[in-house]
Amino acid sequence: MGNADLVYAQQATAKECIHKVAVPQPKPFVSKFMSSLKETLFPDDPFRQFKSQPLARRLVLGLQFFFPILEWAPSYNFAFFKADLIAGITIASLAIPQGISYAKLANLPPILGLYSSFVPPLVYALMGSSKDLAVGTVAVGSLLLGSMLSKDVTPAENPTLYLHLAFTATFFAGLFQTALGLIRLGFIVDFLSHATIVGFMGGAATVVCLQQLKGILGLQHFTTGTDLVTVMRSVFTQTHEWRWESAVLGCCFLFFLLLTRYFSKRKPRFFWISAAAPLTSVILGSALVYLTHAEKHGVQVIGHLKKGLNPESISHFTFQPEHMMIALKAGIVTGMIVLAEGIAVGRSFAAFKNYHIDGNKEMIAFGMMNIAGSCTSCYLTTGPFSRSAVNFNAGCKTAVSNIVMAIAVMITLLFLTPLFHYTPLVVLSSIIISAMLGIIDYDAAIHLYKVDKVDFCVCMGAFLGVVFGSVEIGLVIAVAVSLLRVLLFIARPRTSVLGNIPNSTIYRNVEQYPVAKSVPGILILRIDSPIYFANSSYLRERIARWVDDEQDRLKLRGEYSLQYVILDMSAASCIDTSGISMLEEVKKNVERRGLQLALANPGSEVMEKLTKSKFIEAIGLEWIYLTVGEAVAACNYMLHRQKPSRGSNDVEAGSAEV
Amino acid sequence: MGNADLVYAQQATAKECIHKVAVPQPKPFVSKFMSSLKETLFPDDPFRQFKSQPLARRLVLGLQFFFPILEWAPSYNFAFFKADLIAGITIASLAIPQGISYAKLANLPPILGLYSSFVPPLVYALMGSSKDLAVGTVAVGSLLLGSMLSKDVTPAENPTLYLHLAFTATFFAGLFQTALGLIRLGFIVDFLSHATIVGFMGGAATVVCLQQLKGILGLQHFTTGTDLVTVMRSVFTQTHEWRWESAVLGCCFLFFLLLTRYFSKRKPRFFWISAAAPLTSVILGSALVYLTHAEKHGVQVIGHLKKGLNPESISHFTFQPEHMMIALKAGIVTGMIVLAEGIAVGRSFAAFKNYHIDGNKEMIAFGMMNIAGSCTSCYLTTGPFSRSAVNFNAGCKTAVSNIVMAIAVMITLLFLTPLFHYTPLVVLSSIIISAMLGIIDYDAAIHLYKVDKVDFCVCMGAFLGVVFGSVEIGLVIAVAVSLLRVLLFIARPRTSVLGNIPNSTIYRNVEQYPVAKSVPGILILRIDSPIYFANSSYLRERIARWVDDEQDRLKLRGEYSLQYVILDMSAASCIDTSGISMLEEVKKNVERRGLQLALANPGSEVMEKLTKSKFIEAIGLEWIYLTVGEAVAACNYMLHRQKPSRGSNDVEAGSAEV
Repeated sequence: MGNADLVYAQQATAKECIHKVAVPQPKPFVSKFMSSLKETLFPDDPFRQFKSQPLARRLVLGLQFFFPILEWAPSYNFAFFKADLIAGITIASLAIPQGISYAKLANLPPILGLYSSFVPPLVYALMGSSKDLAVGTVAVGSLLLGSMLSKDVTPAENPTLYLHLAFTATFFAGLFQTALGLIRLGFIVDFLSHATIVGFMGGAATVVCLQQLKGILGLQHFTTGTDLVTVMRSVFTQTHEWRWESAVLGCCFLFFLLLTRYFSKRKPRFFWISAAAPLTSVILGSALVYLTHAEKHGVQVIGHLKKGLNPESISHFTFQPEHMMIALKAGIVTGMIVLAEGIAVGRSFAAFKNYHIDGNKEMIAFGMMNIAGSCTSCYLTTGPFSRSAVNFNAGCKTAVSNIVMAIAVMITLLFLTPLFHYTPLVVLSSIIISAMLGIIDYDAAIHLYKVDKVDFCVCMGAFLGVVFGSVEIGLVIAVAVSLLRVLLFIARPRTSVLGNIPNSTIYRNVEQYPVAKSVPGILILRIDSPIYFANSSYLRERIARWVDDEQDRLKLRGEYSLQYVILDMSAASCIDTSGISMLEEVKKNVERRGLQLALANPGSEVMEKLTKSKFIEAIGLEWIYLTVGEAVAACNYMLHRQKPSRGSNDVEAGSAEV
Repeated sequence: MGNADLVYAQQATAKECIHKVAVPQPKPFVSKFMSSLKETLFPDDPFRQFKSQPLARRLVLGLQFFFPILEWAPSYNFAFFKADLIAGITIASLAIPQGISYAKLANLPPILGLYSSFVPPLVYALMGSSKDLAVGTVAVGSLLLGSMLSKDVTPAENPTLYLHLAFTATFFAGLFQTALGLIRLGFIVDFLSHATIVGFMGGAATVVCLQQLKGILGLQHFTTGTDLVTVMRSVFTQTHEWRWESAVLGCCFLFFLLLTRYFSKRKPRFFWISAAAPLTSVILGSALVYLTHAEKHGVQVIGHLKKGLNPESISHFTFQPEHMMIALKAGIVTGMIVLAEGIAVGRSFAAFKNYHIDGNKEMIAFGMMNIAGSCTSCYLTTGPFSRSAVNFNAGCKTAVSNIVMAIAVMITLLFLTPLFHYTPLVVLSSIIISAMLGIIDYDAAIHLYKVDKVDFCVCMGAFLGVVFGSVEIGLVIAVAVSLLRVLLFIARPRTSVLGNIPNSTIYRNVEQYPVAKSVPGILILRIDSPIYFANSSYLRERIARWVDDEQDRLKLRGEYSLQYVILDMSAASCIDTSGISMLEEVKKNVERRGLQLALANPGSEVMEKLTKSKFIEAIGLEWIYLTVGEAVAACNYMLHRQKPSRGSNDVEAGSAEV
């Protein structure tokens, strides 16, 4: 049971069961490159179904690939339609007031919010692969677009140019999204971690809520800044302009909306109550204003909305260099953000209903939707979470619910716009606040705090950046921190000392397994990461420090000296030329101290590179083992063969030390 | 020997030797954070020696930390001095002509090259920890500084402002280097991989050589562009201005220099021949011009050099916003590049002589050297490879060789500058070309090609970017490609299917070990990387694809169906909240197919996070095993216990399939 038995047992097996580490056949570079390109760009293997099919079938599959509607339309039936109709009408009742509200957030004419709920949903119904996504504008995207464009053109001074810039930015956003999808670079969305998105969204929702103080308090003048400090100063320096009528109305509607939301959350069967609440509020508010003539007593109203469908807007694109750059930048940044939201929303519902969504295909759909939208007086759209959740709860079956919503919006545009003349802005503010309060995800933040403090810090960084800086600053912080985490992880991989788990040939991290015992005369180190240029010099220093520490420790305790250093390479799945130089230097360093280096379980790529670089020849194939256990057994065997008398002492010392 | 024996053997052991996976004690966040901060910023544990020392001793150690000269000076002796004297004189003979040449490369007055070999080496001798580094200006840094500053100010039109900008940029470079060292962020230098440095340096050396065509051909006008195409066009459109006198002289000297280099390389004992060759060329060339009055026949000469030591230049710093930004940018970029070179050179010689260099401490030394230099009319300096190699070959023992060089340069500045009046520019060009040809590292490129094609592509990308674009473009390509590689690696980790190595409980990648056999009814997957937000959605899809593939394969062959999926987590050293969600989704997905998920060998951090996030409870602790072998044994045991009759069939089918 002591170490001694173990050592002898290992010695006994050392000769018979040493396995060879396989050196794989070197693959030609081109085939390796192609396979890693495939893994990078087509990880979900979208062409799987195209394999060994006749040409005509491939053509059909290809069309279905870009227009998923062709796939599900043939099997569409009346039961589906009934469900989609209900869901579509429900989301339309949400889409109309939200559309108007969010357009105001982007400093755009309210009618654009309605336009944006007409054309893009139709395009998405043709090209999108999610069954649950409801298309429309989003608060954060609207705010971001508005704040980025306002830097170049003041919407109040030059509304036409501002409008044209918004179309141009939307066009660029669509182009960018389509391009990302086409060249299958969708995975860059993954570099926005969940934690940063939670923080960023929470911060943006807070900022959007703060902006609504203007509407709630009925203020005429308001700051263009979005940070907490500026907004609060702006609010509290003009207390004399506060309108109690507006504030009372706002609070009542907000209370009503929150109440219905709370109720629907408790009883999911009554989802339609909270879904219909915004439209109800709009109708109630408009009626109230109309009857009391409150618009003459400080309650601001939407005013005139033009009747009729989307006018074309291709002719309005602005390609003058001085404005185009800002539109391009705004398009790319906002396009990326709304893409991340849309994809995440689509994926979560798909996971729930157990169907697959191809992120890159979705990007093309989003992109085409925004390109088409930008040509027909729409601005940036995506799949907002709140609307999609309502759609899902309303029992939608396919993207037809988007078509139903589009038709409902169309009818509104054609006939019902005059009804919104008396809609008070304060109701829209209440609707936005109520929606935004749902976006701030306390639970997720608490979960992050409990499980992963670093993720929580990242999340709070993004949140505070948005709230106290600006949306852009928060975004930059979020992306920078996410990237920094990845790079730091790459630059500082873990290394650990392994010890033997008693009564086995298993070797594990001695920190995790306190029962694991170190093997006399042998230091076993494990590198927990691929070896790359970014970490090779760190690893060199870290390994030297481990060896130093071990030698110091042994010297202090006056024990047998260190003889072997075994590097467990199991987790080092690849290595580059800098990594190989690192290994060469480690070998030199170890040998300079009179020790012998051995490697355990190098993977196929590592073996291939080590062979090519002649490192294998330098270290000798006999010092490369399949498992740590075999390496230890071989080292022990040699330790005791070399110095038979001292060896047995060692073993006794070893067995005494538990 | 067949699978059947194995399976029964495993079953027999399944009950007795199942080890538990340890769940480590959760450490408090602060201590975890501090330890990872220490690992990040102090990987080499520089304060090791400060531990348990009295205050006075700590103070001395602290001073020695920042001024390593205090450490080695007390034990300095005459034998060292003799060696350093010879080395110092040797490098001075190289430093004088190189300094003059490189200053011209940066469009600066030649005398600055001499100034820069006087003050900075003295500062480095005090603060630097390398014993072999010889301080001076470098060609690539000079070219880069020149080309970046020329964009703002044309040196020919406004030489004073240009000069002041160069001082300011050097000051910023020094400040940046010091700051990086002080906040211990030296590791960002590691993100420039060896391959990119080889490519970038090779490209820069080529570009520098191309620029020398002006001097060699004695051209009066020359393009300000640096790319191959522009330079070639500039050279061949003015063939009528070519001066044969100049060209012949240049080629003779180049031949002489290359010959001496070749000779010294063959016989390292005669290192001084190639080291003294540049100064010899300068003397020969000057004498030739003086005697033949060649300066009147189209051979350009240096002209008047001011006598006297470095004048102060603090008063010349330009902090006007419009120029400062360009100086800041140039300072940071060039500071980074020369830092990378200097650190790499210092490290390689330290590794050779087996002493340790603290990269961050070196950065502070470089930074202080450049700050001091910028105040005393010097421009950007570092530890150039060529000069340090000569220093090393000349047998230098300590940084005193730098002091000797500085004194030699001082004597030159005080008394000998008139001697350079007649030095022909063409000789300087030959000196530069000869030095640059040594920098282009064909061997390294060939090695990269043989060992790692991707690294080779990165290298060639940087090289071609510099040669056909510009130095900045090459640099951007190099950094971008390096970062992209790191990010791609993170985003697309390897996963592999494991199989059983016959007659053992070892499981290995079936691609690397063709003998490894899959276990009937069990799919064993290995994730070869930490699980992070950047790769979690890829891993989810990839795992689903592995399971799909396995189910398809089994269905095609009509074999027993899949029952268990084992994830080998050995290489997944950490996990974040996105990774945990991924595991949860994988579990759901696997269960939806009627399969059972098991984990093998999760590490301590993974276990800690899985416990905190309640994933352990969800999957059940009994489905987490210490090794893949134990997981397989347990799964097999349950497979056969559940369906005894079908189970034995399976095993037979399994043993038949080899």
